[in-house]
Amino acid sequence: MTYLDLNTPQRTIMTPGPVEVDPRVLRAMSTPILGQFDPAFTAIMNEVMEMLRKVFKTRNQWAFPVDGTSRSGIEALLCSVIEPGDKVFIPIFGRFGYLLTEICERYGAEVHTIECPWGQVFNQQTIIDEMKKIKPKVAALVHGETSTGCMQPIDQIGPACREEDVLLIVDAVASIGGVDIRVDEWMIDAIVGGTQKCLSVPAGMAPITYNHRIEKVIAARKKVERGISTDDDRKNELSRTHPIVKSNYLDVGMLQDYWGPRRLNHHTEATSMLYALREGLRIILEEGLEERFIRHKEHEEALIAGIEAMGLTLYGDRSVKLATVTCIAIPNGVDPESVRAMLLDEFGIEIAKSFGPLEGKIWRIGTMGYSCRKENILFVLGALEAVLIRHGVAVKTGKALQAALDVYATQKKQSKTVVP
Amino acid sequence: MTYLDLNTPQRTIMTPGPVEVDPRVLRAMSTPILGQFDPAFTAIMNEVMEMLRKVFKTRNQWAFPVDGTSRSGIEALLCSVIEPGDKVFIPIFGRFGYLLTEICERYGAEVHTIECPWGQVFNQQTIIDEMKKIKPKVAALVHGETSTGCMQPIDQIGPACREEDVLLIVDAVASIGGVDIRVDEWMIDAIVGGTQKCLSVPAGMAPITYNHRIEKVIAARKKVERGISTDDDRKNELSRTHPIVKSNYLDVGMLQDYWGPRRLNHHTEATSMLYALREGLRIILEEGLEERFIRHKEHEEALIAGIEAMGLTLYGDRSVKLATVTCIAIPNGVDPESVRAMLLDEFGIEIAKSFGPLEGKIWRIGTMGYSCRKENILFVLGALEAVLIRHGVAVKTGKALQAALDVYATQKKQSKTVVP
Repeated sequence: MTYLDLNTPQRTIMTPGPVEVDPRVLRAMSTPILGQFDPAFTAIMNEVMEMLRKVFKTRNQWAFPVDGTSRSGIEALLCSVIEPGDKVFIPIFGRFGYLLTEICERYGAEVHTIECPWGQVFNQQTIIDEMKKIKPKVAALVHGETSTGCMQPIDQIGPACREEDVLLIVDAVASIGGVDIRVDEWMIDAIVGGTQKCLSVPAGMAPITYNHRIEKVIAARKKVERGISTDDDRKNELSRTHPIVKSNYLDVGMLQDYWGPRRLNHHTEATSMLYALREGLRIILEEGLEERFIRHKEHEEALIAGIEAMGLTLYGDRSVKLATVTCIAIPNGVDPESVRAMLLDEFGIEIAKSFGPLEGKIWRIGTMGYSCRKENILFVLGALEAVLIRHGVAVKTGKALQAALDVYATQKKQSKTVVP
Repeated sequence: MTYLDLNTPQRTIMTPGPVEVDPRVLRAMSTPILGQFDPAFTAIMNEVMEMLRKVFKTRNQWAFPVDGTSRSGIEALLCSVIEPGDKVFIPIFGRFGYLLTEICERYGAEVHTIECPWGQVFNQQTIIDEMKKIKPKVAALVHGETSTGCMQPIDQIGPACREEDVLLIVDAVASIGGVDIRVDEWMIDAIVGGTQKCLSVPAGMAPITYNHRIEKVIAARKKVERGISTDDDRKNELSRTHPIVKSNYLDVGMLQDYWGPRRLNHHTEATSMLYALREGLRIILEEGLEERFIRHKEHEEALIAGIEAMGLTLYGDRSVKLATVTCIAIPNGVDPESVRAMLLDEFGIEIAKSFGPLEGKIWRIGTMGYSCRKENILFVLGALEAVLIRHGVAVKTGKALQAALDVYATQKKQSKTVVP
């Protein structure tokens, strides 16, 4: 049996991730690789650390990618910090809060959760009050919930955690690079971002950053460094007060020694993915963070205008909407998967369904990174209108694209920002 | 501050990994991505599973990559199979045996090891006898030890393990695609291969395969499937007889449900890396497994002839040499790192040092995958001779390339295989 050359269909990817990869990033990946300890490569590693600090708005020494998809970064931080029996506090407002909970429980944490209805987020004071009552070692929460399209404000939570000596760990997988995040100003102790969403880099890396408070916890759990373990070494390690991190692959202390000046061998860095991440970060810094956030807001506005002009209803509390994910309540009587299939088959457009209680109730449209472009917004609006008509939904016809174009025209007048 | 376009130096990478990536693989990575549940993408996932089965010589249902570097695949298998207190037997003959040990200990296994001097391997019967004494749940071992350039024969170990109902897990990171491995015939229960070595794909994926015996163990530890966890769900899970796997990211049971027909959402598949792996596997299957193994042997032979003609000595027991890694004893009085630095700076050639007790004692030259080419062998021999002369080593001059060319000429006469 012979296998053919890759021959993939052309797609317009409007899900909340993975989204279209910037063509420059695709090209960067075809650069020949270097050895992981080649000085030319370690220079690239250092450069990526510097770029990540800028994107995370932090002066943390440690900012590097974990070599795995987003959840590998979440798990690396959690499993390196949490010891069995530790109290962890997790406010849940969608599916990915459950993921944080599950990971913490697997590693033996005593997890305390509060939940609010999906489509909403918490008042920050509620989280702070609960945190003070529970007195956890760690508070972990999601910033942008892709499952509901809601964004939890977090600027006041960090300072409150600092006062109570609680470590704040944030999942910013869906928001980093699309929405403002200020790691130092908001006193976030550790954070993980996703590559396959607003950075427009393929899935396969999980950028993290963390401060000295986290580093101290990790240092206490570090393996005694050695070339080769001996039985004595092992016994010494196993008798340490703080248990060694369960995972070797996701042990942030070991990753730190690999990314740091000691360059202690751990895994073999995923060279081509690092080239991709570097190019993705370079594009963001060239565009400018603030300009990029405005761009995401502007396209979101046009998309929403089009959707509402069609007579469709958005899902979730508008005041806490995540700019990079727009959720549409599925009209009564329509088969949600049939609509998605027709969008894919006839237009090559992918939009997303949702999870758990929201499956079959909402569609989700992502406006992230390179996918967040005017032509994509207009294409998806036109296609959705056509497909809904085919499905017998009584949409207001001919309005969606006009409304979106109006939004773009107004933006052009009001701002110096040229929407790309 | 602006960041420049990637501008990497040209390298000839002759380490035991990462090695040069096949240009076809580099190109495949610049293919635009697809959504992870796009039928066009899941078809590619299925195709990769099929190709992996061929390369692993297995009929196992499960053969897929873990989204991380090689050790993520090792850890995924070990942490999904091993429960705290389980007896694991690990014969150690180099650095990566210690890695297996460390991972198993982190997850609470009672590890029993035997060790043999570095540069040698075990008689299979020694391993079998020890395994029968220890009666472990799992025997884990390295097939090709990159740290010493030795290969442990394993064809008799699997059948003996099967008789004793011991699970055999093999680390074939350095050998898969370069040396013959017969998963089914040798009765290997689970195995992990590396991408950045003989497959000539960048680091960042770890192909694994496992049989129904492993699947049964994993099934017993599986999370109860659910859309959204509730407190009750969690209590039920936590009260199961077999503890849930500690890691979420590396939980093979969850990976299986993602790669299987249920396609349950877990991570977001690393699309571009999967394209790379697919192309790497396609190249191997086009070349032919047996032809590829012969090619690796032929270039190894030429390399060894050249090294010995120069008057250098190989390290390690020749009868158990790994065809893809050649270790050279560093001549007395020479600064090993200065030699490596001059090779890199003057010739753009990278060779490797070794670890622990072998650091400063041997250099290691990889002949793996795309790097395993005639011009690379000849280039590294010529360069090494020149650099050693510069370092005042009394090598026999003008012999190395002649010896290698003689080997190639003889091979050409004897065989129908055209060395590429």
